This record gives sequence, structure tokens and C-alpha cells, in this order.
Amino acid sequence: MSIRVAVLGCGIVGGGVVRLIREHHESLAAKIGAPLALARVLERDLGRAKAAGVDEALVTSDPAQVLDDPSIDVIVEVMGGVDPALSFVERAIRNKKSVVTANKMLLAAHGARLFALAREFGVDLAFEASVGGGIPIIRVLRDALVGDRVEALQGIVNGTCNFMLTRMCDDGLSFDEALQEAQAKGFAEVEPSLDVDGHDAAHKLVVLATLAFGAKLDGFHVFTEGIRSIEPIDHRFAARWGFRIKHLAIGAERAGALELRVHPSLVSTSSTLASVGGVLNAIAIQGQSLGPALLSGRGAGERPTAVSVVGDVADVARAKVLGVPGMSLRGLQLNERKVLPTDDVETRYYLRFQVFDRPGVLARITGALGDARVSIEQMVQEGRGDESGAPVQVVMLTHVAKERDVRAALQFLGVLDFVAKPVCLIRVHG
Amino acid sequence: MSIRVAVLGCGIVGGGVVRLIREHHESLAAKIGAPLALARVLERDLGRAKAAGVDEALVTSDPAQVLDDPSIDVIVEVMGGVDPALSFVERAIRNKKSVVTANKMLLAAHGARLFALAREFGVDLAFEASVGGGIPIIRVLRDALVGDRVEALQGIVNGTCNFMLTRMCDDGLSFDEALQEAQAKGFAEVEPSLDVDGHDAAHKLVVLATLAFGAKLDGFHVFTEGIRSIEPIDHRFAARWGFRIKHLAIGAERAGALELRVHPSLVSTSSTLASVGGVLNAIAIQGQSLGPALLSGRGAGERPTAVSVVGDVADVARAKVLGVPGMSLRGLQLNERKVLPTDDVETRYYLRFQVFDRPGVLARITGALGDARVSIEQMVQEGRGDESGAPVQVVMLTHVAKERDVRAALQFLGVLDFVAKPVCLIRVHG
Repeated sequence: MSIRVAVLGCGIVGGGVVRLIREHHESLAAKIGAPLALARVLERDLGRAKAAGVDEALVTSDPAQVLDDPSIDVIVEVMGGVDPALSFVERAIRNKKSVVTANKMLLAAHGARLFALAREFGVDLAFEASVGGGIPIIRVLRDALVGDRVEALQGIVNGTCNFMLTRMCDDGLSFDEALQEAQAKGFAEVEPSLDVDGHDAAHKLVVLATLAFGAKLDGFHVFTEGIRSIEPIDHRFAARWGFRIKHLAIGAERAGALELRVHPSLVSTSSTLASVGGVLNAIAIQGQSLGPALLSGRGAGERPTAVSVVGDVADVARAKVLGVPGMSLRGLQLNERKVLPTDDVETRYYLRFQVFDRPGVLARITGALGDARVSIEQMVQEGRGDESGAPVQVVMLTHVAKERDVRAALQFLGVLDFVAKPVCLIRVHG
Repeated sequence: MSIRVAVLGCGIVGGGVVRLIREHHESLAAKIGAPLALARVLERDLGRAKAAGVDEALVTSDPAQVLDDPSIDVIVEVMGGVDPALSFVERAIRNKKSVVTANKMLLAAHGARLFALAREFGVDLAFEASVGGGIPIIRVLRDALVGDRVEALQGIVNGTCNFMLTRMCDDGLSFDEALQEAQAKGFAEVEPSLDVDGHDAAHKLVVLATLAFGAKLDGFHVFTEGIRSIEPIDHRFAARWGFRIKHLAIGAERAGALELRVHPSLVSTSSTLASVGGVLNAIAIQGQSLGPALLSGRGAGERPTAVSVVGDVADVARAKVLGVPGMSLRGLQLNERKVLPTDDVETRYYLRFQVFDRPGVLARITGALGDARVSIEQMVQEGRGDESGAPVQVVMLTHVAKERDVRAALQFLGVLDFVAKPVCLIRVHG
């Protein structure tokens, strides 16, 4: 008896999965206790499927031939997006097939509901590849930490942002130059918003937080900022004060509620997260008993993500062979959790004002911050008011302050006539 | 029905295991599908067991009351050492009990045989806590990478060495000062040889390599060097040339054979491994498909190690409840593998000669190296010959060379009368 696997979508990751299943056929069979057979590939583009070495006879564009075929045991969903992936995954589960998915957007919107559905129908729903590509963070949160409690996590989970920030920081590129290079190298889409505006990282944070904190977060709108407002001067000042700028997904337990946010952060250069460069991803965890831990690796690309998918396929196939499907979701207890308003965040802030250099400007900025109980640790003015009337840069680092207070001060300052452009605000991590 | 667990040894880790099982009783029961019950603790020192909150009635000093009790399902071995742990683990397996062990010395000496025995008797033998404390490296190698092939790994796996090297590098301490501090903080034993001479790291490398490369390595004597010969000047020159000194356990596939070695290494300051400081451990993996990945965290201490033990206990208990014990070792195929002689290692070398500064000395050193086909990339002489006749330091970095050739040159130089002390040799990583 073999375990019959169907793959939905034969793009970059799907093609990689097909190849790895072929290349590691023997060790997979030994681990699973039965050989894996590629039974079907759902793909409209026959050329893509053939490029991955799929037998033409296995390719179909009819979902019913895959999802309703009772001989198929495991569905691998690597199409991405919510529609039609959601209906396909639901149908597969209702047809008692275990599902392996790499789809963070789907899980961020419907994960808790799909986990419950999989439990109801006694099948597995595995999703290692949805966060961090080849990094086995899901496995670690789900299985390794059952005797611990996660207190906080921070992730560099978007390779495009990390590549761009690394190039901007190390080589002085502007945002536009870094984006062009990322697109040329295939790290960024032509329409890069999902990555550079932080939405992809927000989806991944929802998946991580669901698991790490046992929270029902389907469709939760995480506070999200991208990296568009970061300029070379910010990397320069960050370095001067001992930081690197990283785009972080942050989750933490705070007084019985959850703190969830995605934004650029100043990270101490001596920290391990700061050393994670280029397209690499990393997730740092703080466990109550475990203490700090970090996992890093390639967060995207055909092969690393496919390794995670195939690891999941082996798990759910083995459970099927042993007659104990649905095992992977055991112990996953999800509850409604309160999420802290962003206004309640307390941290240090990096603030860069672009102002016209008139007498009294610095006093008014520091005065407005002081009135809002935001105290300044360091401040530098770069440039001087000259004939051209070009704005100067006032850059500062605050002591720990409440987001609410910082926002109030910035709102007040924003309407004053000496402010040339909106302030650049970057939160300091740790 | 509950799953009955017995703990052999109620020391630091054993006490932590008992506490975590108590604290996470509910989530463990949900994951396992049945509650865990602490059935017995084998411990001579009743005070230690009571300090961990163990009911006096459960404590025994008679192994038979634990190992031969048919009501006990899972044995947790956290005694350490080979004798009597080996006989206890064997007896437990033969009595059809699954075993969770944190004992790297035992596994380095007898792992492959014990895995085979566990398979024969249809039980699990789990060992996450044997390497890297709370870092889930065993789980990752065993399960996550089933669709990949590990090409190489490098580990900072001894927290004592890493703490000492970090203090020496960052704060200029001598070896003796760093050791005293490590002992005062409880990071090093009074008899520190197992740690500072590299044996503990060698045991862990054998466990890692067994799993990563599918190799039968029971009792294999890994080439091992400790950190006793490293002096403050070496940290200084390493930093000057862009490196930090880390004690690494290295395993790699090389032309069909394995390369295994444990020694201090120069690691580029820009690498993630270099940023792993203090008592933290880290393991870097290069997978054929995965590419580079790194896991880091606390490598020792009661709680992190206990988290790993309890994760394993949950796995084997769940397998027992589901009626599929022995599942964790499925797919573990171990073969006899050739290990490369250390003489065949090819790398760059850091060499520090302590010589009497006489005319022609440098020429003789460089000449001897050149004759052995070892070419020098950089060289610095520190100090000058003076009236006192104190030796001077000649420090160099070579291009890639064969270990055999380097050794031949050093052997030749070692007998010459201008050499004041044995050379300090540190291999360069990467």
C-alpha cells in the first residue's frame, strides 16, 4: 500500500515538492512505513508541471478529480491566496484527506476554523511551510515546547524586507534602488505591497501567535507598518547609536493580553537578530522555562520551503499508515484572547523630524514631547538652516514612553508650520 | 488511564522535569490524550527529591522497583554517565518501556546499539535533551529534514567553553580567570576537563552526526582539542583579522566520507555563529535543499534541558496512548561510514609562534612552512628581542592548506632551538 499525495499548484514550491518526493523516495518510505506516490497535480499550465518532471497523465485542471478522488490520502496546497484555496482545503478535509499547506494568507484569515474542522473530521492539517520557509518553527512551537509557555517572540519573517534593509544598511542604497534590485533578483514581486508594506509579515505573525499563545485570531488585523518610510539617514543614525533596522513581527504576553505588531525596529547590533542578513529569516522565542532561543534560515525559495512541506507530508502520511490521523493537532487549544491596543505599547522611540530651521524650533519639538511625558535620551541636528531654505533633520532617541503619548506629541507637532514632512518613527526593540 | 512516568535521578535536570510535568499537567494531558502521572523517582538523596516536590512515597533507591515495575510506561534517564545508566536503559527497553534520555556520554558510546534495541522491543528512545539543552535540534534533524540531506553542521555545544571564550574575548580575562568565574557561577565543574578539553562537545558531535549523517559511530574517538592553549593575545589577533574564537563541533560530508572534529575555531565576526555569546549554544546546519539554518538557545541549566525532556516525554507518551510506540525511531537508518583522517582536513590556519628573536628566525619559520606547501596570507611579529631575552610572538594566518602539511612543518620547527613554547594552532572556519 502506498500513500497517495496530490499537489494543488505546480509553481515554484509545488515543483520543489514534486522533486524532493522523487529524490528522497527511499528515506521517506522508511520513515513513513509505506512509499509515497504522487497521484495528481492540479495545474492549468501543463508546461510548468512537465518542467517539474510530472507525468502528463497525472496533471488535471479539474479540482474535483483531486479533491473528490477517494484514493487520494494527502493534499498539498501550495497555490497561495484565499480564493479558491479555502474552498479546496475545506473540501479536502470534509473528504477526510489530510492537508499540508504553505498558505499563510489562508491561515491568517481562517486558520483556527480550519484546525477545528480538521479535528472534527479526524485528519491532519500541517503548515510548517507557511512561516519561515525552511525554518522548522511550527514544529518547535507545536511539539518541542509542550512543557513550556511562550512569553514572547520576534520574527524577521519577510525575506524581501530583510534583503532590502540589509542592502540599504550595508551599501547605502535607497528604498527604490533596493526594491529594484530585489525585483531583478526575483526576491520581490512587480507589485511589492504584500511584502514591503508588511502584510505578509502580519499574516505570518497571526499564524505564529495562534500557535505560540493559543489564540483564536482568524482575520485579526494586526497593527502593521512597512519599510517605505526608511531612508539612508535612518540606517546611518541607527548604526551610530549601536542598532540595525530590521522589520520585525512581534508577539508577546502582556498582563493577560497579547501584544501583536509588525513594523521596522531598531535592534541592537550585538543581538543575534541583527546578524540575520539578506533574504534570511529568523524567529526568536522567549520561553518561560526555555529562556531565549532563535531559529534562522532561508525564509523563501523553492527548495527550503519544499523541505518543510515534505517534512509535513512525511508526518501526516506516517500518521495515516499508523492509523492515527489527526494527531498533529492534538493539544492545540485555542481561546479568544484580548489584544492590547497599539496605544498601550511602551518602548523607546527613534524619531526623525524634517523641519525648517527657524529660531525656537528645537525648543518647540522638545517642549511638545516633554508636555506629553516623552523624555529624550539623545538628540542630533543634521544640517543647518541656509539660504536655500531646505529642511534640516532632527533625529532623536527617547527613553521608554507610551505610544499614546508619543502619538499625541507628534499629532500636535504635525500641524505646525515648521514641519516640512511627516516624522519618521521607528520603535526600538528590547 | 494515565501514562506512568519514572525519573532516574532527581538532580538539576530531573528536578526540573518533575516541576514542569506538574506545572503543565493540563496542556500535556491535552497533547498526549491522557494525563501523565509521576510514578517513581529513583534517587538515593531523599532531600533532593523532596526539594523538587516529590512525594516521599514515590522515591526509591532500588532500581528494580522502577525498571521492573510493569505499571511504568516511560523511563526518564537523567543520571548521566555510562555506568549504571547503560544497564538501566537496556533493562527498561527490554521491559518494553519507552526511554527519554539526556545522556550524551551514553549515546556517544552506545547510541546506535540502543536505538536498534529499542526498535527490536518496539519502544521509543528519545534524546532531544542530550545535545543543546533546550534547542530542538534532534527533532529538526530527525523529522523536519526527512526530505533533505544534511551536508554539514557546526555546533557551539558546550556552554562552559562558550562562556569562558566570550569572557576572554570581550573582557580580556585569562583562561584561569575565566575558568574560576565559570566555576563560581556554577557553569563549570570543579574538575572541568570534560568541558574545557572538549570531550563533552565530542560526545554531542557523535550524537548529532549519528542522526545527521546516518552513521554508526558508537564509541568513535573524534579528533578533539579543548581551549586551554588559547591566550588573550589570540583573541586580540582574531579580532584584528575579523574573527572571534569559538569552540566548534564540526561534522561534514566530504567525498563520500565524514569529517568530524572538535576544536577552537576562528569564526568570521559577521557570521551568526560569532554572535552566539555567553552560555548560549547554537547549531548551524547546511542542508542540500534547505541551505543554511541555525538554531540557538540555552544549552544547559535545569529548565531549558527539562523543557526538551518533557517534549520528548509528551511524544513517547502520546505514541503509547495511540498504540504506536517505537514511532520516533522509524526511518533512522544507520550505516558504517568512513571517517576522514584529521591529516586530510583542508582549511586556513591561525598559527602563533613564541620564539627567541634571533636573526633569521622569521626566514626559517616561513621557509619551513613554504617547504611544506603552506603559504602565508598575513603575518605580524609582536614585541622585539631585547636584553631580557623574553620570547616574541609571531602570529600568522595561512591560505588553505592540508593539515598533514601544516603538522609536518610544525614538527620540524618544534625541534629548533629558537622556539620557546609549543605553537598555538587554531583552525579557521569557513
